[in-house]
Amino acid sequence: MASAATRAAKPGLLLLRRTDATFTAALRARFRIHDFYASGAPLPAFLTAAAAEADPPRAALVLAGGAIQVDAAFLDAVPSLGCVVTTGAGVDHVDLAQCARRGVVVACAGEIFSVDVADHAVGLLIGVLRRVAAADRYVRAGLWPAQGNYPLTTKLSGKRVGIIGLGSIGSRIAKRLQAFGCAISYHSRAPKASVPYRYFPDVHALAADSDALIVACALNDATRRIVGRRVLDALGPEGVLVNIARGGNVDEQELVLALQDGRIAGAGLDVFQNEPHVPPELGDMDNVVLTAHEAVFTEESAADLRELMIGNLEAFFSGKPLLTPVLSRP
Amino acid sequence: MASAATRAAKPGLLLLRRTDATFTAALRARFRIHDFYASGAPLPAFLTAAAAEADPPRAALVLAGGAIQVDAAFLDAVPSLGCVVTTGAGVDHVDLAQCARRGVVVACAGEIFSVDVADHAVGLLIGVLRRVAAADRYVRAGLWPAQGNYPLTTKLSGKRVGIIGLGSIGSRIAKRLQAFGCAISYHSRAPKASVPYRYFPDVHALAADSDALIVACALNDATRRIVGRRVLDALGPEGVLVNIARGGNVDEQELVLALQDGRIAGAGLDVFQNEPHVPPELGDMDNVVLTAHEAVFTEESAADLRELMIGNLEAFFSGKPLLTPVLSRP
Repeated sequence: MASAATRAAKPGLLLLRRTDATFTAALRARFRIHDFYASGAPLPAFLTAAAAEADPPRAALVLAGGAIQVDAAFLDAVPSLGCVVTTGAGVDHVDLAQCARRGVVVACAGEIFSVDVADHAVGLLIGVLRRVAAADRYVRAGLWPAQGNYPLTTKLSGKRVGIIGLGSIGSRIAKRLQAFGCAISYHSRAPKASVPYRYFPDVHALAADSDALIVACALNDATRRIVGRRVLDALGPEGVLVNIARGGNVDEQELVLALQDGRIAGAGLDVFQNEPHVPPELGDMDNVVLTAHEAVFTEESAADLRELMIGNLEAFFSGKPLLTPVLSRP
Repeated sequence: MASAATRAAKPGLLLLRRTDATFTAALRARFRIHDFYASGAPLPAFLTAAAAEADPPRAALVLAGGAIQVDAAFLDAVPSLGCVVTTGAGVDHVDLAQCARRGVVVACAGEIFSVDVADHAVGLLIGVLRRVAAADRYVRAGLWPAQGNYPLTTKLSGKRVGIIGLGSIGSRIAKRLQAFGCAISYHSRAPKASVPYRYFPDVHALAADSDALIVACALNDATRRIVGRRVLDALGPEGVLVNIARGGNVDEQELVLALQDGRIAGAGLDVFQNEPHVPPELGDMDNVVLTAHEAVFTEESAADLRELMIGNLEAFFSGKPLLTPVLSRP
């Protein structure tokens, strides 16, 4: 009886992402779960059914970068909803204006990913300049004894690095690369107060003044394909591109052409326009390092994220301020 | 006539390394070259012939890490010698005591390589923890769409990094990894004044207290196989090893066993015991990054080194202090 009472007392949660066994157990221990992927229902039917319950769910946990948009239709379908927690650092999949109108608070992953993304960005940059992955292939193929020393690679230290987007991730990349003796410049909507780096109001001018260009901005209408043919040509035949933001920030077709023509020197890419599909032309290039949209996540940050998601939900249900709010109650 | 006089006026130089066309031309413009590799003679005969000339060579340019040792026999063969310039940062191939006895000054490459080695060490560390090369293989093999997301990797930021040898290279690695939020400790013969890092007089204790162990010391009797089974076991199943020092600093057989048994988590290796041969067992491991003793050198540092070698030789022949002396005239 106590167990049933406890179960009944658990607050309802719409679960709109797949979770592993550990996280699922942690959520079930605290919340009454409406699991979209387990339901097998289409999204509107799933939401309507959940909303029709006697104690309808007041919070939703959603995945960033997935197909589900928390828009007016979503919010209308579950009027009981008061809180949306997303696993993303960005919230382009949540309509904040519609949430604000309905008094729905929103929490995101905060800066939990920024450190890992910044670390990975530096790994890709060194990987491209020093040909780490290509040399690893060379050694594994037995070519060192057969063909002699690997060709000389390119120095990182002292290079001019241009960062597009000096937010939580970009500023951490800057800090890391400063320690390598790189000269940091950046482009963003407006210059940041209290950073020692040179600001470029124009991304083309930033690329022209950079040996390496790192894309670290959010994806929105202003930054979609911010790196296109003109910017790549400004970066030039000695320049390398690193993208750890979103595939949509770069014109991928132009990037492939620039690499094929030698109009830029190389690229380190963690994100692509049509993931998990990667342009096959890149697979033959030794001046390219390719990883599978994994900059954002390590074992350690996955655990941190699970804790933070639960912390935000518990804060909401107990009437406390969210831990990492994007939108708070006014 | 003027040309012949100029040629005659050029000081003689023993050249004991292979040089590319650019460097050879730069040397020939300044010095009368006795080229060992072009001579085809055995070393003693080559040295004796050079010493028998009317104006015997007073300087030698030697390669570090090659087969040639500048020892008592070498120095005895060419009594005219007053200066040895080596392309290495280390001078284990030059007998400094014998040079000092004969008043022969010695110059090395100074810290010219340190920056590139430090950069590469960080690249290997990120490469191992974040599986950059392995993920690159995964993407190139088309496995992302076929098998889904690449498994989660390991965070760098915040890790405890132990550095063996806090010299010119080790201290630069420390500076870089501090910017990643790593906690730096080190082992060396004696604690360094004015560094903020924790000192371990015992390398085993350092390994036990580290998530990543980076070998950055010189190779000598005290550091040969400084990383053996006991140190690897202290590093433990979550720990990774990076070696950018010399293959001889690590017991390679024990390293392979530790990786095979999962007694350490991974390794990033630029140097090997029997280069260019790499233990074939390593070629099948995804938790290992292998590069071909290339940390030390980039296009940029190669150019810097050529300038420095010539600068040291010109300084010697014009009676000025060496630019990067290991042993100066008393």
